[in-house]
Amino acid sequence: MVPPPPEILARDAADPLAAVRERFHLPDGLIYLDGNSLGPAPVAVFSELQRAIADEWAVDLIASWNTAGWFALPRTLGARLAPLIGAGDDEVLVCDTVSINLYKCLHAALALQPDRHVLVAEQAGFPTDLYIASGVAAARPGLVTRLQGRDGETLEELIDGDTAVVLVNQVDYRTGALRDMAALTECAHAAGAVILWDLCHSAGIMPIALSDCSADFAVGCTYKYLNGGPGAPGFLYAARAHHGDLVQPLTGWWSHAEPFAFASGYTPAAGIAAMLTGTQPILSMRALVAALDAFEGVDLAVVRQKSMALTDLFVALVEERCAGHGLKLAAPRDAEQRGSQVSFRHAKGYAIVRAMIDRGVVGDFRAPDILRFGFAPLYIGFADVWNAVEVMRKVMETGAWETPAYANRPAVT
Amino acid sequence: MVPPPPEILARDAADPLAAVRERFHLPDGLIYLDGNSLGPAPVAVFSELQRAIADEWAVDLIASWNTAGWFALPRTLGARLAPLIGAGDDEVLVCDTVSINLYKCLHAALALQPDRHVLVAEQAGFPTDLYIASGVAAARPGLVTRLQGRDGETLEELIDGDTAVVLVNQVDYRTGALRDMAALTECAHAAGAVILWDLCHSAGIMPIALSDCSADFAVGCTYKYLNGGPGAPGFLYAARAHHGDLVQPLTGWWSHAEPFAFASGYTPAAGIAAMLTGTQPILSMRALVAALDAFEGVDLAVVRQKSMALTDLFVALVEERCAGHGLKLAAPRDAEQRGSQVSFRHAKGYAIVRAMIDRGVVGDFRAPDILRFGFAPLYIGFADVWNAVEVMRKVMETGAWETPAYANRPAVT
Repeated sequence: MVPPPPEILARDAADPLAAVRERFHLPDGLIYLDGNSLGPAPVAVFSELQRAIADEWAVDLIASWNTAGWFALPRTLGARLAPLIGAGDDEVLVCDTVSINLYKCLHAALALQPDRHVLVAEQAGFPTDLYIASGVAAARPGLVTRLQGRDGETLEELIDGDTAVVLVNQVDYRTGALRDMAALTECAHAAGAVILWDLCHSAGIMPIALSDCSADFAVGCTYKYLNGGPGAPGFLYAARAHHGDLVQPLTGWWSHAEPFAFASGYTPAAGIAAMLTGTQPILSMRALVAALDAFEGVDLAVVRQKSMALTDLFVALVEERCAGHGLKLAAPRDAEQRGSQVSFRHAKGYAIVRAMIDRGVVGDFRAPDILRFGFAPLYIGFADVWNAVEVMRKVMETGAWETPAYANRPAVT
Repeated sequence: MVPPPPEILARDAADPLAAVRERFHLPDGLIYLDGNSLGPAPVAVFSELQRAIADEWAVDLIASWNTAGWFALPRTLGARLAPLIGAGDDEVLVCDTVSINLYKCLHAALALQPDRHVLVAEQAGFPTDLYIASGVAAARPGLVTRLQGRDGETLEELIDGDTAVVLVNQVDYRTGALRDMAALTECAHAAGAVILWDLCHSAGIMPIALSDCSADFAVGCTYKYLNGGPGAPGFLYAARAHHGDLVQPLTGWWSHAEPFAFASGYTPAAGIAAMLTGTQPILSMRALVAALDAFEGVDLAVVRQKSMALTDLFVALVEERCAGHGLKLAAPRDAEQRGSQVSFRHAKGYAIVRAMIDRGVVGDFRAPDILRFGFAPLYIGFADVWNAVEVMRKVMETGAWETPAYANRPAVT
């Protein structure tokens, strides 16, 4: 394999984010291009959990719900996350899972639109979004779902005066295509619709401006580019303008106006707390505290610049150095229209990804033919991109992927 | 204070569970009678999380979803929990929160009863049960809720041919009163109703026989007597007989028949997996692995015998040694009709509990006048009971609770 040339090494030397890599555990020799699925472990996560367990749970026991701020974590973590997504401190909660937060926000959004009956979404959106939407629709016989990719070419042509809610992913999980949040939010609002953004593949990788765009609702996960750990809690955003009208069906005790009064009647809390449900997994939330600590001093505008440079370099190197092997770019060619991942199509995509993983470059595969590579600027450098493409080139040139072991894709990947 | 007499010390010396206490972190000098709210930290929890973080997440990253069994945890932990609640291996999931599992199970139970329109529950049940029931009822205009304590004296008199579902707590969270699971399940079934048990205050403290009672559904938490940690995931049980008909609205991707096919259409998984929703908080779940390890070799019949002996002793000692101070037993006097907690009523209950906590005996208070003390036989002994009552006696005799600092109860306790 050809080592990185000087101009690549010079880019790493000039990288203002280079030192941030030290905040994460990354195995020697591994190039991890799957942070868009699961971010690596922040170095500080272990000491944070040690505090939560050894200094709080083991010593103060039940009192820690107050003394260690456990009960407030959905709101305090929400407030810490808020600047990363351009929201106000009181507009974000960290809680539950993306799927559950989506269910709550979809209900809350539909409740704002009693006279409308159409949900607009993407057929190619992350599947759980559509699955949850189907669960919501099952309880609303009149609700019609219009899907981009089935009922029309673009979301914009599907949005009209019947549209209650637009549910949309900011970054497509397969192709990496990035939506224009400001323009689409304006389009939805012009039609009188409410918009709900899924930020799973954008949060932590670029500046997001929910408030400036007047977005209504958003959900996202914290285990991808936010590095909160496996199954780290989801988040939800509800614009302050809607705080007086938040109605959702998962009315557990943490959403009660006075959860510790133990009243038998339900009275929703004021503000964003009305979107809570039950007791939250504190240890998993504390891992996220350490993960957000790793963003201290990091400017998301700088992250975005490096992200575009990394993905541009990857596209250019693959097309140049792996030419002739049938890899077809599936991501937008213009970095401005891309998230922080690059996808290629290849009929033998699964086998190629497996062969690369066995050689220390971790990407992933999405059916039927997508090879997906995520570039997280907090811990991926330009030499990593070069070396990853060298491994890919060798796999393609030697036919290393044509091993019988790579032929069959297991059900769980 | 009077030290424990020899007959009390002899009971600890003969206790077959005495050595199990070593499996938990318990601060020196503290008598922890609040394990019915939050169990103490198992000693093994820290090494278990170290494995999950340092050996799995930090090293194998995304691959750990398979190689470390993360994806299977809701089912594998469910199977480990199953014998503690008398269920089959494939009838239990550990996932989400009690409130969310209750929402799912209530929907699934109501879906089995399309021609019935009455939900029977308890006005004195744990509030979140009623709050969630109200959220479910809001989407079902025809559903009528009948409450024991408001619409009738007993659950049995409220159950009739219109009853779709009976939602009931096995142990009352305030008084500690224990239901007869077999008899009430039979009563519900005789009327053609489906029954859903809330096991939050019984799981881990006594043998439970869901399958033998032919119970339909159950939910519970793992952070009380199961010691899984703050906000540890909830569990749910659905009887195998219903596995062909499980319908619930939180249809996230983990409940899909092929979650990694990323199909746009929703097809529910077979069996109990249809009750899953989204990605689970793996670190919090791994703490529960360590907590269940602490039950290895523990016979719940022995736990129940010791539990009854501990609570009998506490009732007898309080009534004898704290007589004349207005403490009135709120728990059933017969240990067979009690969970593992004892409650007393006193108009100054909050101040008394606070004064006891400041003197190293941790119980809790529930409005308006309940002093609650939980006895977890895995780490509480007979001398602990003696010493706790001595502290209570001193607080009552000296009027230590009459400090202004204890006068006002904060909103969050």
